[in-house]
Amino acid sequence: MARKQRAVDCGLGTALTVIGGKWKPTIVWELHLGPTRFGALRRRVLGISEKILFEQLRELEADGVVAREVFDSVPPKVEYSLTPAGVALNDAVHALAEWGRNHAAVGMAGTLGHG
Amino acid sequence: MARKQRAVDCGLGTALTVIGGKWKPTIVWELHLGPTRFGALRRRVLGISEKILFEQLRELEADGVVAREVFDSVPPKVEYSLTPAGVALNDAVHALAEWGRNHAAVGMAGTLGHG
Repeated sequence: MARKQRAVDCGLGTALTVIGGKWKPTIVWELHLGPTRFGALRRRVLGISEKILFEQLRELEADGVVAREVFDSVPPKVEYSLTPAGVALNDAVHALAEWGRNHAAVGMAGTLGHG
Repeated sequence: MARKQRAVDCGLGTALTVIGGKWKPTIVWELHLGPTRFGALRRRVLGISEKILFEQLRELEADGVVAREVFDSVPPKVEYSLTPAGVALNDAVHALAEWGRNHAAVGMAGTLGHG
């Protein structure tokens, strides 16, 4: 039992490390719609700065969730997309977000009351 | 697009508020195995104190994730179990934990390096 318990803890910890923070769930959500250029992504992730978006993408790339492709056109074109791991992460995050929306809707009054 | 984006953010925020913290994923995981009495739960959630377990269960109950049933035997018996919402939450959390384990296993070296 303990081994499986640790597995849930470690796995969840790792996942939340990769997807944690204010912006990453939204960036991953937008990229799951298809390969996107930096400028378009920046317009669609409301309120994010260029610097932050660049850093978040670089972290997601380092974590194997996002792929970055450079097209040698003139000027060079750069596109970001989800790797298979990124698609799987988006699905898992989306399932948790769906739970949150459904259960917020049925009035989980207690939820917002905790410290 | 923006509406769906907010939906992902709000839902995920609500879910992580309900299941966040060191102990709740493990408590919910243990209860998904079946109705459990306080003492047994305390033994199985390694390292948790009686006070903390009591508080976490009360919060999970307030959030509609855990149900508490009192049997009027002598002495009275109390059992905790997952509500349907709790079962759905456990499934969603488990999917994210599975992702984390699978992708930690393939060496997402970048993951642990971020601030």
